[in-house]
Amino acid sequence: MFFHNKRLQYTVRVNESNPGLANLMLEQFGGPQGELAAACRYFTQALGEDDPGRKDMLMDISTEELSHLEVIGTIVAMLNKGAKGRLAEGTESEAEMYRSISGGGNDSHVTQVLYGGGPPLVNSAGVPWTAAYIDTIGEPTADLRSNIAAEARAKIVYERLINLTDDPGVKEALGFLMTREIAHQKSFEKALYAMEPNFPPGKLPGDPRFTNTYFRMSSGEPEHRGPWNQGEQWDFVPMTQESAPVDGESGLATVQMTEEDAATLRAMATRTMSNPDSDPLTGAELGMGMGMGKKTGTP
Amino acid sequence: MFFHNKRLQYTVRVNESNPGLANLMLEQFGGPQGELAAACRYFTQALGEDDPGRKDMLMDISTEELSHLEVIGTIVAMLNKGAKGRLAEGTESEAEMYRSISGGGNDSHVTQVLYGGGPPLVNSAGVPWTAAYIDTIGEPTADLRSNIAAEARAKIVYERLINLTDDPGVKEALGFLMTREIAHQKSFEKALYAMEPNFPPGKLPGDPRFTNTYFRMSSGEPEHRGPWNQGEQWDFVPMTQESAPVDGESGLATVQMTEEDAATLRAMATRTMSNPDSDPLTGAELGMGMGMGKKTGTP
Amino acid sequence: MFFHNKRLQYTVRVNESNPGLANLMLEQFGGPQGELAAACRYFTQALGEDDPGRKDMLMDISTEELSHLEVIGTIVAMLNKGAKGRLAEGTESEAEMYRSISGGGNDSHVTQVLYGGGPPLVNSAGVPWTAAYIDTIGEPTADLRSNIAAEARAKIVYERLINLTDDPGVKEALGFLMTREIAHQKSFEKALYAMEPNFPPGKLPGDPRFTNTYFRMSSGEPEHRGPWNQGEQWDFVPMTQESAPVDGESGLATVQMTEEDAATLRAMATRTMSNPDSDPLTGAELGMGMGMGKKTGTP
Amino acid sequence: MFFHNKRLQYTVRVNESNPGLANLMLEQFGGPQGELAAACRYFTQALGEDDPGRKDMLMDISTEELSHLEVIGTIVAMLNKGAKGRLAEGTESEAEMYRSISGGGNDSHVTQVLYGGGPPLVNSAGVPWTAAYIDTIGEPTADLRSNIAAEARAKIVYERLINLTDDPGVKEALGFLMTREIAHQKSFEKALYAMEPNFPPGKLPGDPRFTNTYFRMSSGEPEHRGPWNQGEQWDFVPMTQESAPVDGESGLATVQMTEEDAATLRAMATRTMSNPDSDPLTGAELGMGMGMGKKTGTP
Amino acid sequence: MFFHNKRLQYTVRVNESNPGLANLMLEQFGGPQGELAAACRYFTQALGEDDPGRKDMLMDISTEELSHLEVIGTIVAMLNKGAKGRLAEGTESEAEMYRSISGGGNDSHVTQVLYGGGPPLVNSAGVPWTAAYIDTIGEPTADLRSNIAAEARAKIVYERLINLTDDPGVKEALGFLMTREIAHQKSFEKALYAMEPNFPPGKLPGDPRFTNTYFRMSSGEPEHRGPWNQGEQWDFVPMTQESAPVDGESGLATVQMTEEDAATLRAMATRTMSNPDSDPLTGAELGMGMGMGKKTGTP
Amino acid sequence: MFFHNKRLQYTVRVNESNPGLANLMLEQFGGPQGELAAACRYFTQALGEDDPGRKDMLMDISTEELSHLEVIGTIVAMLNKGAKGRLAEGTESEAEMYRSISGGGNDSHVTQVLYGGGPPLVNSAGVPWTAAYIDTIGEPTADLRSNIAAEARAKIVYERLINLTDDPGVKEALGFLMTREIAHQKSFEKALYAMEPNFPPGKLPGDPRFTNTYFRMSSGEPEHRGPWNQGEQWDFVPMTQESAPVDGESGLATVQMTEEDAATLRAMATRTMSNPDSDPLTGAELGMGMGMGKKTGTP
Repeated sequence: MFFHNKRLQYTVRVNESNPGLANLMLEQFGGPQGELAAACRYFTQALGEDDPGRKDMLMDISTEELSHLEVIGTIVAMLNKGAKGRLAEGTESEAEMYRSISGGGNDSHVTQVLYGGGPPLVNSAGVPWTAAYIDTIGEPTADLRSNIAAEARAKIVYERLINLTDDPGVKEALGFLMTREIAHQKSFEKALYAMEPNFPPGKLPGDPRFTNTYFRMSSGEPEHRGPWNQGEQWDFVPMTQESAPVDGESGLATVQMTEEDAATLRAMATRTMSNPDSDPLTGAELGMGMGMGKKTGTP
Repeated sequence: MFFHNKRLQYTVRVNESNPGLANLMLEQFGGPQGELAAACRYFTQALGEDDPGRKDMLMDISTEELSHLEVIGTIVAMLNKGAKGRLAEGTESEAEMYRSISGGGNDSHVTQVLYGGGPPLVNSAGVPWTAAYIDTIGEPTADLRSNIAAEARAKIVYERLINLTDDPGVKEALGFLMTREIAHQKSFEKALYAMEPNFPPGKLPGDPRFTNTYFRMSSGEPEHRGPWNQGEQWDFVPMTQESAPVDGESGLATVQMTEEDAATLRAMATRTMSNPDSDPLTGAELGMGMGMGKKTGTP
Repeated sequence: MFFHNKRLQYTVRVNESNPGLANLMLEQFGGPQGELAAACRYFTQALGEDDPGRKDMLMDISTEELSHLEVIGTIVAMLNKGAKGRLAEGTESEAEMYRSISGGGNDSHVTQVLYGGGPPLVNSAGVPWTAAYIDTIGEPTADLRSNIAAEARAKIVYERLINLTDDPGVKEALGFLMTREIAHQKSFEKALYAMEPNFPPGKLPGDPRFTNTYFRMSSGEPEHRGPWNQGEQWDFVPMTQESAPVDGESGLATVQMTEEDAATLRAMATRTMSNPDSDPLTGAELGMGMGMGKKTGTP
Repeated sequence: MFFHNKRLQYTVRVNESNPGLANLMLEQFGGPQGELAAACRYFTQALGEDDPGRKDMLMDISTEELSHLEVIGTIVAMLNKGAKGRLAEGTESEAEMYRSISGGGNDSHVTQVLYGGGPPLVNSAGVPWTAAYIDTIGEPTADLRSNIAAEARAKIVYERLINLTDDPGVKEALGFLMTREIAHQKSFEKALYAMEPNFPPGKLPGDPRFTNTYFRMSSGEPEHRGPWNQGEQWDFVPMTQESAPVDGESGLATVQMTEEDAATLRAMATRTMSNPDSDPLTGAELGMGMGMGKKTGTP
Repeated sequence: MFFHNKRLQYTVRVNESNPGLANLMLEQFGGPQGELAAACRYFTQALGEDDPGRKDMLMDISTEELSHLEVIGTIVAMLNKGAKGRLAEGTESEAEMYRSISGGGNDSHVTQVLYGGGPPLVNSAGVPWTAAYIDTIGEPTADLRSNIAAEARAKIVYERLINLTDDPGVKEALGFLMTREIAHQKSFEKALYAMEPNFPPGKLPGDPRFTNTYFRMSSGEPEHRGPWNQGEQWDFVPMTQESAPVDGESGLATVQMTEEDAATLRAMATRTMSNPDSDPLTGAELGMGMGMGKKTGTP
Repeated sequence: MFFHNKRLQYTVRVNESNPGLANLMLEQFGGPQGELAAACRYFTQALGEDDPGRKDMLMDISTEELSHLEVIGTIVAMLNKGAKGRLAEGTESEAEMYRSISGGGNDSHVTQVLYGGGPPLVNSAGVPWTAAYIDTIGEPTADLRSNIAAEARAKIVYERLINLTDDPGVKEALGFLMTREIAHQKSFEKALYAMEPNFPPGKLPGDPRFTNTYFRMSSGEPEHRGPWNQGEQWDFVPMTQESAPVDGESGLATVQMTEEDAATLRAMATRTMSNPDSDPLTGAELGMGMGMGKKTGTP
């Protein structure tokens, strides 16, 4: 069960109302790497988790991410305060209003016209948040890796936002949020490696013929190699047109069917067969004015 | 530049046409953890990459994932061959057709009616693939972690598909595809750790006050701890209602505005003020039949 | 700031693992009328709100909805417990596994194969949750009405779920959740009517020529009227082809342009002009085999 | 069956071609609160409705909303007329074209490059319209409340657009459209309250233990109350960590399973168990350069 | 301006309530090839069109498609009539209700639980309709081709639905709707070829070096050719690894930058450089238990 | 199986780093008419195709579109090179960074902040690519028409991008890509017309009563006709309110139900009946302050 306290996890002091900056901050409110995604990711994992320690950790961090969502959403709301009143009250001339809404140089017009200056769950392009951002699949050796990656991404987006903000209060709060992503990544790393073994993820082993093979699929000079495909642990296999398939069989696809299905399929193939030896007049040729004198020109 | 060879990377032998199984296989064709997602993920990273070795690796693996997309899509196409002809040619009675399309027990009706038995870029629920599945952000210490996690997820979904298929040819091809996810994860791990240092990701360091802190946000018994929040490297901080905010300030949000904006905002607040001391008749009360005699019952 | 307690707001006792029922329950977890939508709706409104009383109410109810999200998500997780283990461990034969996953008769195959039996933020069709479900626009006379409607919808979907569940523990928890939607609707109603006036919403008055007019746009017998278009407060205007436009002007659209733009537009119109007096040979006619003898048959 | 007349419901006179303003107008064409959403909402309700009077009303208003869609779409088309020709004919220098497309300060570049200056069904951020905006659930006590709210929202977005337009012809047409939302809201209100009773929505009553309870979930000073949680009709219950669960039971979740399922689940839990007493070396520590000398520093 | 008549364009007689069949019919109501897509496609084109004849045609056909939307939506509503009452009134036992909702074998559970048996704007998988289905770009030589293709697709999906329906009234109405797609395709074909020339679409000519070239990108035996790449009008160019690039230059990408930008980019490349000669210990190796003895095994 | 060569299909020389232009180019990378859509469209068709010649053609063109995706993505990456380094390294002042990111006048802020200057699979508005863009339905007479239309659209969007680029290297590469769309359209046209007959698409013939009928649905002066509805092949039928339905029957919808279902439906209708003769007090009237003195004013 959740509880709320009116104090934020971190104090927010915004120096100046600025709807353009508010719009950029939406990346970490309703964007793919933002706090709603983080909170939902860990919360749903916690509900499904059967290891009591990981369950507690996931719920703790999820709850903290909700508190971060409140911090970043509050920053957005504060940055929008001035704009919110102006449009609702219609106190400027229409021409001034249009200029101030369109002149921000980013998508803050959407936040203002559609969302009235509140903090909507969209990213800085106005794209609504979607659970398609969440990649939880219910297996901890995969989900913890997903969480580690998610924290790394969120850390970077905060870093970018810090780099383009000169409001010291906003900068400080963003610095706090960014730091917490580092701490969370560390926790998820500990939880992953406390599972022994955790690689390969899941239960089934790989096929030993292909576990240590690196297929070079991209030819051309120069070729750069590194620890990801060189060294004794790797079989480095440069693929050519002749190397397909890797199983040494035909490389073709086959399916067995009932005779009735096969006959029906042949009927369909016959009905939709193209005549390879024709040179039919086409719509494109009609469109070039070749309908009558056919095949006399090129576009 | 890409080239194609008509032989598959791995030979596909399907034992029996089965549109229900085809539908489940779509998870790895047009699903979030599937091969299109993998190919697009590494391809877009390769285009933006400035390290020549990583760029080569990303393009190699992307090209292989395209080849896997062809393998899994071919499995789908083969499993659908029988159904495809039947609906197109209308050779069964309508009642039989309806039963065979609706009785599969999963969403294969969509694949058949809407997509005609071809392999569409949707998951097994019929949800169209979206680039929202791709979490690339253009910073290698984050993107490589995202790739590691993506390979782990794909490995698991293949494992699940293997667990519910008893067609030996399908099983074998899925086993190949699953194994390659293991090999790719290993390559991405090598590439990540060949960047020194790679943690914290990005350039800005964290705020040392909060980097090693674990906030316990979820109370209640029993409490389970582990290496993610215990040991000398962690400051374990149980949060209570009194601990907000963690910066020791007010925990409130403030913004500075021009006096004009502030006045406009006050005007809006006054216009939309709720009267806390009223007890207004409401629509719900009207809806309970309390419009005239007001507040005499409860729903 | 948020806090969490390990006890649920309402005790959950599930009588029997049932992934098919779990899948239906997803409507109120990750569906459009579900608890995540409710929590996000009120939370974002609370952040933007300038009336202190409404802000408190919105945050209270949002926090409770998060607690409901935990209850319904826990129901899903419990209903899936049996299935989760079976697929992860691969303990059944593949054929049995396929039957149990495909035979449920609804989309539980997605929950199991893609999400591993955890509670994903999707609806019962597997469609990922999207913030497009949230209709907050940052104006309380509209948002409170949206909230009233949202609570009414959620109440109904719970009612439907109760009608198709015979597990007494699930039924009881759903009954609690359904009841709280009633209570929340009542609070939002009070908050709306504590704003005086609240209709028309916003600040601008309507044009008195059209505020009380009902346009009958749909003709044919029989015609049914009611308080929504009859009585002294309504001008009932049956529209005919002759009544357009309602402003008594031309009903046409005009725009003024610079002469340069107008000339460019004319050039484009000329370039893309269709010849109304031609009878061109078309691709469809080619496709019917009429390319040479043109216009002699019909499909 | 539908019919169309070439005259608009309201005459449109646009003073000046302006693609930036056109882009903002898209909110009411293809945006969530726009006319397509309104028309589709009432049309689908009309098809499913069993009350003849409401069915007529819904079809009337749906048809009028289609006519409004035509008015607002025509405004967009007129505002784009100049830009449409210029890009299609390539009559300006590329540099001028780039400036005029990018310099508008909002997303009009999308409308021009992708949609060629026509009116696309997207909002002002370029997000395609989705039926996820429509919240109809097929129960009139809920749907009518949704309609009331939808009209209130549409009224407000028109008000905002009016506040930032100084073209008198556009302003006048927007004023007409805004006014009609007021009239429609009034009709839907009448239809709702002509159902007696209409609260609680649906058929099942609430649980009397929780119908009049207000749970205070958010603590901290100051506390603001109002008619939504004070007065004799409310039980005001301040929740603390000790109050969970509200049913007085354990607040825990349980599920009964077959012994076979339970054993499989235990096997999975054992396989994926984390070792709470370990202090494993992690990838993050490797990434900080701690692989060999382990646990000697912090990021 | 639109008008409505209560009579359908085509009489609908449904023989038997059948929610499973209703669900399949949704493909042509809220699916990608359905009537809403058709109506919106032509309606938005009509608004932007500058040729008076095409504008009239587009509005005529759009209006007819709206009338078709009403016919197919009415079929859905009629097929759902029985189910709608049962769930709303809760007249069956919960177990019977669950079976009847889950046993349909397709996604009708969504239509019933979430949409209450009304006709929602989703496809047969429950995926909400999106304007991403509409491919209008505001250039008639392209849009008319898109319309021709859209009518062909809609014709086919109707054909499939006819093939699996044995209700004679439904079959007859579907036959009417299918036929009208044929007629509409014919109209759009006439309109396309009444533009002379219409190929290549748009204004800019192609580069004559590449207009008649067919690049063979896919090698392997057997090779099948046809009128699309053989005959005197085609230059057939088999591509090999050596043929890139086709312009005879380097095939590399270059960009000019300010020296400051170049220096910053170099700094970033240095910071994120991977060490190609390392053989780092990785997280995967830790996960295999190789943290201490490093590089001694394989998964 | 796919292979890759490091040389592009066409050499890319970008004259100047320009993130604003990069953003516009995204239309053909991750936009609806872009190269990913093209490649996926033909690739999925190739997998399902049963005609060997068409299958080869589809795979050839799909492979070339992948190569185009690489060309356009490389252009995006090159145009972003300068911006990418600046934000990652934080070398400018925050205020300069903010200005350069927000001042571009289009959505390049998203590409930079969220995607770090890499080429994301989004369109120029930042909307993620979705498989909903792909309209393949698995029937060649429809799919080839869809392909023809898709090539026409892609050609036009390239033409627009060429019209607003003055970088000669970018212009040249775009010219190549545009030209190839022309060549591909020609191939698809040949393949369509090599199927004889190909109209009407599919197998079922139309109903001869309605195949050649044009319904005039839109009245009002002036009326423009053309080859799409005049000439001896057309029956031109002006529809009036009296002409519905076209089948000469009642134009009403009926469904047969079991008596039990009918009784349940009647019960539901009675429960949710509106009282047509009431004049209920409504929430809107309460909101206007009419709660006590009812019906005395208008908004």
